[in-house]
Amino acid sequence: METQLCMKDLVAFCKRKGFIFLSSDIYGGLNGFFDYGPLGVELKRNIKAAWWNSMVHEREDVVGLDSSIILHPNVWKASGHVDGFSDPMVDCKVTKMRYRADQVFYSPVRINGEVVGYICVADGENRDAEIEKKVKALLKSVQRAGECIDALQLKPLTEAKPEEYALIPSPATDKPGDLTPPRDFNLMFQTQVGAVASESSVAYLRPETAQGIFIHFKNVVDSTRVKVPFGIAQIGKAFRNEITPRNFIFRSREFEQMEMEYFIPADEAVWQELHKQWIETRYDWHCSIGIKKEWLSLDVHKKEDLAHYAKACTDIMFKYPFGVQELEGIAVRGNFDLTQHQKFSGKPLEYFDEERKQKYLPYVIEPSVGVDRTLLALLVSAYDEDEINGERRVVLHFKPQIAPVKIAVFPLVKNKPELVEKARALFKRLQKRWYTAYDEAGAIGRRYRRMDEIGTPWCVTVDFDSLDNHTYTLRDRDTTQQTRLSEDELIKFFEQHLA
Amino acid sequence: METQLCMKDLVAFCKRKGFIFLSSDIYGGLNGFFDYGPLGVELKRNIKAAWWNSMVHEREDVVGLDSSIILHPNVWKASGHVDGFSDPMVDCKVTKMRYRADQVFYSPVRINGEVVGYICVADGENRDAEIEKKVKALLKSVQRAGECIDALQLKPLTEAKPEEYALIPSPATDKPGDLTPPRDFNLMFQTQVGAVASESSVAYLRPETAQGIFIHFKNVVDSTRVKVPFGIAQIGKAFRNEITPRNFIFRSREFEQMEMEYFIPADEAVWQELHKQWIETRYDWHCSIGIKKEWLSLDVHKKEDLAHYAKACTDIMFKYPFGVQELEGIAVRGNFDLTQHQKFSGKPLEYFDEERKQKYLPYVIEPSVGVDRTLLALLVSAYDEDEINGERRVVLHFKPQIAPVKIAVFPLVKNKPELVEKARALFKRLQKRWYTAYDEAGAIGRRYRRMDEIGTPWCVTVDFDSLDNHTYTLRDRDTTQQTRLSEDELIKFFEQHLA
Repeated sequence: METQLCMKDLVAFCKRKGFIFLSSDIYGGLNGFFDYGPLGVELKRNIKAAWWNSMVHEREDVVGLDSSIILHPNVWKASGHVDGFSDPMVDCKVTKMRYRADQVFYSPVRINGEVVGYICVADGENRDAEIEKKVKALLKSVQRAGECIDALQLKPLTEAKPEEYALIPSPATDKPGDLTPPRDFNLMFQTQVGAVASESSVAYLRPETAQGIFIHFKNVVDSTRVKVPFGIAQIGKAFRNEITPRNFIFRSREFEQMEMEYFIPADEAVWQELHKQWIETRYDWHCSIGIKKEWLSLDVHKKEDLAHYAKACTDIMFKYPFGVQELEGIAVRGNFDLTQHQKFSGKPLEYFDEERKQKYLPYVIEPSVGVDRTLLALLVSAYDEDEINGERRVVLHFKPQIAPVKIAVFPLVKNKPELVEKARALFKRLQKRWYTAYDEAGAIGRRYRRMDEIGTPWCVTVDFDSLDNHTYTLRDRDTTQQTRLSEDELIKFFEQHLA
Repeated sequence: METQLCMKDLVAFCKRKGFIFLSSDIYGGLNGFFDYGPLGVELKRNIKAAWWNSMVHEREDVVGLDSSIILHPNVWKASGHVDGFSDPMVDCKVTKMRYRADQVFYSPVRINGEVVGYICVADGENRDAEIEKKVKALLKSVQRAGECIDALQLKPLTEAKPEEYALIPSPATDKPGDLTPPRDFNLMFQTQVGAVASESSVAYLRPETAQGIFIHFKNVVDSTRVKVPFGIAQIGKAFRNEITPRNFIFRSREFEQMEMEYFIPADEAVWQELHKQWIETRYDWHCSIGIKKEWLSLDVHKKEDLAHYAKACTDIMFKYPFGVQELEGIAVRGNFDLTQHQKFSGKPLEYFDEERKQKYLPYVIEPSVGVDRTLLALLVSAYDEDEINGERRVVLHFKPQIAPVKIAVFPLVKNKPELVEKARALFKRLQKRWYTAYDEAGAIGRRYRRMDEIGTPWCVTVDFDSLDNHTYTLRDRDTTQQTRLSEDELIKFFEQHLA
């Protein structure tokens, strides 16, 4: 199926099957927070394990780290987050609605070149319909209803000139002057460590896991046998107080990152080649876990769009139901972070390169990907509806490595003790090695459907023949083909297909 | 070795080998926060996987969950944490030192029954020496130096009478009246969600993972096929703004919990039997991962010491270097939490038990254990110093399942290309399945020592005989015995010993 599920249906599916719940559901939810249910938590674990295996265990040049969510506040001064990690924000003074200024669009409305007023609309699904409505209302209010207007020139509020602020209406009230001018809003969640609320005890929830890596660069070099080039990988929660969280788990306020800082010689000739390699490695990884290749693309940032410290950046993009968006960023950050931490901490962080006989602050290449975004891309890639023997079914085509449940064991019917006993014995054996379900409730076809719907790759049925010849039916989720195998053949099959 | 490493040496060892670093080390650290280095993060992952396997994957009656750290603030009103999750605190008005009132001890000093003054001392390693010093200074100041005093009657400050506050000196200044009276300090970290700092946007970092489970009880029942009795398990970070964090990672401000709520019929006859079963199951688990049995014990809480909502509680205790302390608590919480959430959310949370034909709010049994406390107990249990052929060595006797690195492969010498090539090929093969190290630097004996010190169970050496007969030396960490095995035998051996 080449068409994607719409977000509304996906959200409902995720709740119904226990993948993802609204956080604090029974209390009406909390905007920008989501909880993972019994199947979601397994998916998440499998994604994280796949990343860790490919980035740490299967490499010799990368080690892991697990730093705190709350770090010393000076870390975020050095990194620039205290001063610069903000989004522009405007408030509607009347309704108290809050908007990200770059997600609110305005335009003068002109008739034959004459400005008769302004319209302003928040970004969203029905933007075009909203604009039409607002133009109509404006024309009516200035008694020019029905007249033809010039083409609108929509711009984000961040590009408005100060003299325009008073003329632009609030998207909530449509009255000019109800919006505040745009101002910066820092996205870091603040808290207090220790019992006294003095400035010295202010702390932040980390907005990224990367800084926890930079500050331990020296500790890792001193406690292990790594040599540049090498990487430090980390998986963990990060928090951003987004002004307008949106698109389900794509942009939430609490999320999980998988980041790696790959330290390389501070040498212009070196980073380009290694950057290219990492983009390939990471792109291949996404394909390997089952993200649809045809919905992946690369976005090479233009030089003029880069942050001042960045040498280059390429994003791996995915075609989500709400548009093509960043799944992973692979940036070359130079040695900005180590330089800053050396300066702010007063601790020398330089690395002595024995091969080059040089002392330097290494550059880094940073592949950074969200667990939640990966999970969403996987769900979208895996979801399918097809027809089996004239019956519609929902099926998740997860790779075995990613599937929450690996195997399901069924006795053909539940009222034959011999079948149940044999099925239970097989289940118990498989369960020791792989996450296995056992199900004896309902017709066999319905039990297959239930497993298809949560992406279980294989079902094994114990039937009457099994009692005679000790073979079982192995049914494949994707092809629905059935094969008869002995217990030893089954085990061998799973060993081959599940690491 | 029956004697334990002292904490100071353990902390230094953990930093040196890359198990645990002070958080934000280069900025002077942050009190109560710790970061896990390359080996520590592997240990943590192995502990969490062992718990998840035994609690979720190898059972049929438990499913997983992963809820947010920031939940709706009403969750903590319902649970009682907003009003009641606090410790008593006192401040020294002069030095601004802050103490937990139950960790500060005072006593009147009497000579023949006459009170000549008070001493006050903060709990800590040198408490007795401190007391002696303070008594001497007091006697001198009241010009009774050298006289014999009656036995002291040390009590925590929480038991002081209000009329005594003015008489008790500060432990920091030794001047009476410098301490504030004890007052409650809420241990939850507070933050603001959304950009407006109004009361409605106050939120808390969860002080436990358990409440995230209770609020999704209904969602899990509705989206899965579980039937009471069943459990919901969760692993995740929790935060407590401890007044005096202490004992390394034992009591930190940011930590990780592994909690399970096991929902059972609301029936007095049922919980006692199931509570007993869970205590056994959890005790056995700690032994199974390598925590020393002789340092484990049970602490059955007395009825009068239980929280008002608890029916029973038994702690699994471990003999840490700083004393016998709680490793895991296994509480029977009745249905207090579900009752509260039903009341505060207005959503019905009752469960219909088809077998009993009853509708009720289930009771829960809650086994709750800290990842960090388990890791510390494992390190203490595994650490050993012994003598091999007259040479002292440090060795960590981790179980293979828990050991950060499973296997190390060495060529006997690094300047023989045939040896290196063969060793690299073997390493590459093993690395695909198990976390394997490759080391060619230094004498073989030193390489063994390095692996012993980080607890790697097996080293495989490729020597000149390997070139002829394709066998390798498998060396056991604990016995240091060496066996010659073919490549296939090696693989079979590791398959048997590593799941």
